[in-house]
Amino acid sequence: MKLGSLKAGGRDGALVIVSRDLDRFVEAKGIAATMQQALDNWTDIAPRLEALAKQLDGREVAGEPFDATLFSSPLPRAYQWADGSAYLSHMRLVRKARGAELPANAAKDPLLYQGGSDAFLAPTDGISLGDPDWGLDFEAEIAVVTDDVPAGVTADQARGHIKLIMLCNDISLRNVMKPELQKGFGFFQSKPASAFSPVCVTPNELGSAWDGGKVSLPLVSTFNGEEFGRPDAGTDLSFDFSQLIAHAAMTRSLAAGTIVGSGTVSNEDYRSVGSSCLQERRMIELLDEGEIKTAFMQAGDAIRIEMFDARGTSIFGAIEQRVVASRK
Amino acid sequence: MKLGSLKAGGRDGALVIVSRDLDRFVEAKGIAATMQQALDNWTDIAPRLEALAKQLDGREVAGEPFDATLFSSPLPRAYQWADGSAYLSHMRLVRKARGAELPANAAKDPLLYQGGSDAFLAPTDGISLGDPDWGLDFEAEIAVVTDDVPAGVTADQARGHIKLIMLCNDISLRNVMKPELQKGFGFFQSKPASAFSPVCVTPNELGSAWDGGKVSLPLVSTFNGEEFGRPDAGTDLSFDFSQLIAHAAMTRSLAAGTIVGSGTVSNEDYRSVGSSCLQERRMIELLDEGEIKTAFMQAGDAIRIEMFDARGTSIFGAIEQRVVASRK
Repeated sequence: MKLGSLKAGGRDGALVIVSRDLDRFVEAKGIAATMQQALDNWTDIAPRLEALAKQLDGREVAGEPFDATLFSSPLPRAYQWADGSAYLSHMRLVRKARGAELPANAAKDPLLYQGGSDAFLAPTDGISLGDPDWGLDFEAEIAVVTDDVPAGVTADQARGHIKLIMLCNDISLRNVMKPELQKGFGFFQSKPASAFSPVCVTPNELGSAWDGGKVSLPLVSTFNGEEFGRPDAGTDLSFDFSQLIAHAAMTRSLAAGTIVGSGTVSNEDYRSVGSSCLQERRMIELLDEGEIKTAFMQAGDAIRIEMFDARGTSIFGAIEQRVVASRK
Repeated sequence: MKLGSLKAGGRDGALVIVSRDLDRFVEAKGIAATMQQALDNWTDIAPRLEALAKQLDGREVAGEPFDATLFSSPLPRAYQWADGSAYLSHMRLVRKARGAELPANAAKDPLLYQGGSDAFLAPTDGISLGDPDWGLDFEAEIAVVTDDVPAGVTADQARGHIKLIMLCNDISLRNVMKPELQKGFGFFQSKPASAFSPVCVTPNELGSAWDGGKVSLPLVSTFNGEEFGRPDAGTDLSFDFSQLIAHAAMTRSLAAGTIVGSGTVSNEDYRSVGSSCLQERRMIELLDEGEIKTAFMQAGDAIRIEMFDARGTSIFGAIEQRVVASRK
């Protein structure tokens, strides 16, 4: 089934079911008012949502026309956003840009940071840029949402805790990041609010493209109307979501509604498939052409992030955002 | 006024008002069901809570007897936990222990990390320790809770956004921390769930001990029944909460219910006032006696964190936790 949250529901949105073809939606308010409520009681709630989804897909329920601008991120605010960095080619390129070393054990020990989750941008919200020199960049990622995960869970056990899958634009401020990371406490100012796709889906919606831990489909980023990258999210990742979740839960449980991100999707053959963020392309330019040609995002720049199934249908709807200058 | 959340209310607790003398409490359910709901609508809700608090303190409402074990952390789960490190003497000592440098600009540029907030421990919950070698440590801190803070707020403006104040035990795994921080993305596994005091208070409850940005009272940590430290939380801090909030909000807004922590309270004369975590004492032992004598916490060890007003009355109730072995 496919789910989303309407902005009209306020801070937590109003939970809706979206038809498989992204054509229509229906409110789930008789079952659960919000996405978080559904996740808090997933075992009880999910079958009732599935039943309504079946009615919507079978046109027993008419629903209303789907319009991405009505949607907030599936969890408009969340209790946890744990973002990984599972694609080594991305790590190698962006660390080169910062003059930072790849951690010694990068291929064996997952990298994960605690992200801000108090208020996510809606998928069609503008990205507010307070200072043109901050080095604004998009990062196209896959993210999953878990139910309650006990501390010490194994990767194998973690698979069963993945309840929903969605896309993410993990917005980064590259020029704020370098000095911030040098202080040793991770990201804070350099990671303003992320945005997620209008729709999140249960794993079964992905069919054979989902193996229990990763999505094997291209993630398409379009920058200012031109395709920028389409790396396959199931290729060249060092850790899948089951491993990232097990890592996150080593010393503590993860509560229902925890979002775990893959990190910027990147393939080793980035020269042919392109990239999922500007910083990667900038480093490829530096390596191949001796100079950086691509600028970071400025007011007016537009990013679209989407994923299509084998028949060419958009699975999650598009994240489609434009940069808006604020202050300064 | 003084507020708390009852465990009986489930994942978000049930909002209660606690009498000024911590003698009785009354449920606020006719006004707001949960602490988060109150914070989401603070301007409307706070005056109504204040009115009920007045009735409770005036014994017009009887209430029920206060019992800390009924209480969860004031926000049992939160959308944001941003923890600072505002006391340079703490930073200097613990970085020495990790063999890490103090950031060049530490006295001018606040240090803040994004903490996990999906499920806090209750103030009297056991601290689960999965591996005795993780190096479990307590950290006694002050924390504040904000309403909605706009991006780009100044420190002066930030003062008005501090709605509640409480105590925190920011639990740390020292031996997990060193390799984790070396990876460059901050804390994750090394910071399991924190616990907060049973009661949080509005700034006016602190009288002259609150200057709009810091609490000038000793924070008392008692380890296994013996006083361990009583540094003054208003002394030797490089940044007060107004500055930490302005730092946190430089590139993004902070949503209502954001918790901001001071970092481990520490004074420059730590040899006379003691410390608020084991790691500091360990480093002082190393400096003064050439060897570390204090071990990290093990199963059975007990920590109590509390703050008293000028008349000796506990302001927030006590965080009182015991370590419990789990797994291994």
